[in-house]
Amino acid sequence: MSCRLADEVLEKIEPVDVAYYAKAQRRLDNLTKPKGSLGRLEEIAARIVAISGKLKPSLERKVIFTMAADHGVCEEGISAYPQEVTPQMVYNFLRGGAGINVLARHVGAEVIVVDMGVKEKISAEGQKNFKDKKVNFGTRNFVREPAMTEEEALKAVMGGMEAFQEAYADKEINIIGVGDMGIGNTTSSSAIVAAITGEDTALVTGRGTGIDDISYGRKIEAIRKGLSLHRPDPKDPMDVLSKVGGFEIGGIAGVILAAASRKVPVMVDGFIASCGALIAFEICRNVRDYILFAHQSIEAGQLAVLRHIGQKPLLDLEMRLGEGTGAALGIGIAESAVRIFNEMATFSEAGVSEAEP
Amino acid sequence: MSCRLADEVLEKIEPVDVAYYAKAQRRLDNLTKPKGSLGRLEEIAARIVAISGKLKPSLERKVIFTMAADHGVCEEGISAYPQEVTPQMVYNFLRGGAGINVLARHVGAEVIVVDMGVKEKISAEGQKNFKDKKVNFGTRNFVREPAMTEEEALKAVMGGMEAFQEAYADKEINIIGVGDMGIGNTTSSSAIVAAITGEDTALVTGRGTGIDDISYGRKIEAIRKGLSLHRPDPKDPMDVLSKVGGFEIGGIAGVILAAASRKVPVMVDGFIASCGALIAFEICRNVRDYILFAHQSIEAGQLAVLRHIGQKPLLDLEMRLGEGTGAALGIGIAESAVRIFNEMATFSEAGVSEAEP
Repeated sequence: MSCRLADEVLEKIEPVDVAYYAKAQRRLDNLTKPKGSLGRLEEIAARIVAISGKLKPSLERKVIFTMAADHGVCEEGISAYPQEVTPQMVYNFLRGGAGINVLARHVGAEVIVVDMGVKEKISAEGQKNFKDKKVNFGTRNFVREPAMTEEEALKAVMGGMEAFQEAYADKEINIIGVGDMGIGNTTSSSAIVAAITGEDTALVTGRGTGIDDISYGRKIEAIRKGLSLHRPDPKDPMDVLSKVGGFEIGGIAGVILAAASRKVPVMVDGFIASCGALIAFEICRNVRDYILFAHQSIEAGQLAVLRHIGQKPLLDLEMRLGEGTGAALGIGIAESAVRIFNEMATFSEAGVSEAEP
Repeated sequence: MSCRLADEVLEKIEPVDVAYYAKAQRRLDNLTKPKGSLGRLEEIAARIVAISGKLKPSLERKVIFTMAADHGVCEEGISAYPQEVTPQMVYNFLRGGAGINVLARHVGAEVIVVDMGVKEKISAEGQKNFKDKKVNFGTRNFVREPAMTEEEALKAVMGGMEAFQEAYADKEINIIGVGDMGIGNTTSSSAIVAAITGEDTALVTGRGTGIDDISYGRKIEAIRKGLSLHRPDPKDPMDVLSKVGGFEIGGIAGVILAAASRKVPVMVDGFIASCGALIAFEICRNVRDYILFAHQSIEAGQLAVLRHIGQKPLLDLEMRLGEGTGAALGIGIAESAVRIFNEMATFSEAGVSEAEP
């Protein structure tokens, strides 16, 4: 990526120090429970220790970035909802009435709403939890022309980096979630997955918010046309992003890269956020160490991303809302893992006998 | 069951009014999200509406009952831990240092520790979160003689009912979790599952706290011997409980029955708690409506219980600690579902357009 801020971020993303996994496991094995009996909570605790480089990690400040943008490909009739829903939902987020607001409150996380490219102007003066990083008023229809220019793709990733860095500058952040809002964005996401992983389009395309068979056929067709028209380079994530991507997807990639550069664990929401993670991973493979996948989406394309990056999600609650809702639940699980690590008594503290040899 | 308290409880356990499922779904479908997009959170919210009979359910008071007892079958060398760990862990619970204490704090739940039959006297005077319902100082070794008498089996179930009712009398309870502590209790649980479901012993027996191959062989052999010696009647759960059960498993069944009689949802922990639910279900099939399974244990026997009762657990985090730790996480998820139901804005409140017809 050719830009100073981006280069500065990327060079700071180092693989985690694997020695921390063993150090963390040593403490976990001394806690009053059979070894390994807390399963994936132990894995998550050890990962957060390794990411943060702290043997008493804190998850005090939790922030969920909900990145919003519109998609020109909606012209093809690929969504059950009209595009006006994107800004309507942004206002719903800002008023605190959406699913992500409820679940973020439940786990004690802030929600920061980022306009990456909503089709209309968002009026949110004085709203502290809103950031305007608008790249453009929606992408172009990738069935006819590239979704965005190369400059716009870079601006989207940079906007995400800036959003993270500004929020971090206010106060240290200990874990983030990333989520999305954008009518039409499962179409863009499936196109990205097909382009990068080489999977067949139909196998990585789902029904998004719940479209009927006719719209589903149109959706697959739109993605196939876009990919065959632009032939994005599977090895060049910025090329893929510009040809068939979305501003919020680029923004999510940027937030993830910036968080990794600050050693902050990232809880990735469902399908669209996973595509943001895929772009980030293709830009810099070291981010793999910093990302946790919150839940298995019912969108089939997410599985291809998980296979490609090589990770397993924490939850499977058959959710497909986006916004960061799955990430919020995942952050709740991550915090429980960290509290286990920090707060449980050891065998010697509690005077409990260990397993017989 | 022949006893007045038990009869009074059982006759109050009615199937839930299914009209509430539709009422709940109507509200869920009006919230600002695509229909069904919150997956199992919607299912859980609707179930809690139906169980409580309230269209604005509250989960204000959350209580986890951790039921402890010892097992005579430990003589057969079937556990990796010495029996003294049961009382040691009870004291760890009472001091707040165990896994269940940490996870209960995380979800805002109280832990009530119930001595159902620990092998030594528990000194816990003045501890408000402790209940003494000791049936006896551990069960007998079921490889040689029945684990308990018929009277003891009844006393165990009654002790659980009383523990719930006393806690409820202090203040209304809105959701409970049930968990266990008892060295040797996966052996008893596998025996119960094999007896009631008719599954082959080896297929429903796991490695508990983590035993080696030799102990695992002994464990399967002990269960086979016990079942062939006592031939418990698969149709009579109290007979099964008395022949191969545990006091804490009977106690868990009692807590569940009493909660169902008060229309309180029950989050069932892992394998041992699922066996308590199996006993409760066999005593009164209507309890099915009131129980939610928190997580899939890695103990294979739990799958047979889930198939038998016909439910699907919420989480799969590869946990096998017991104590109610999985139930605590499940209660966190249930509360997020109830908050979604109560707090999210509707389409009309938020001025958001609905899906195109």
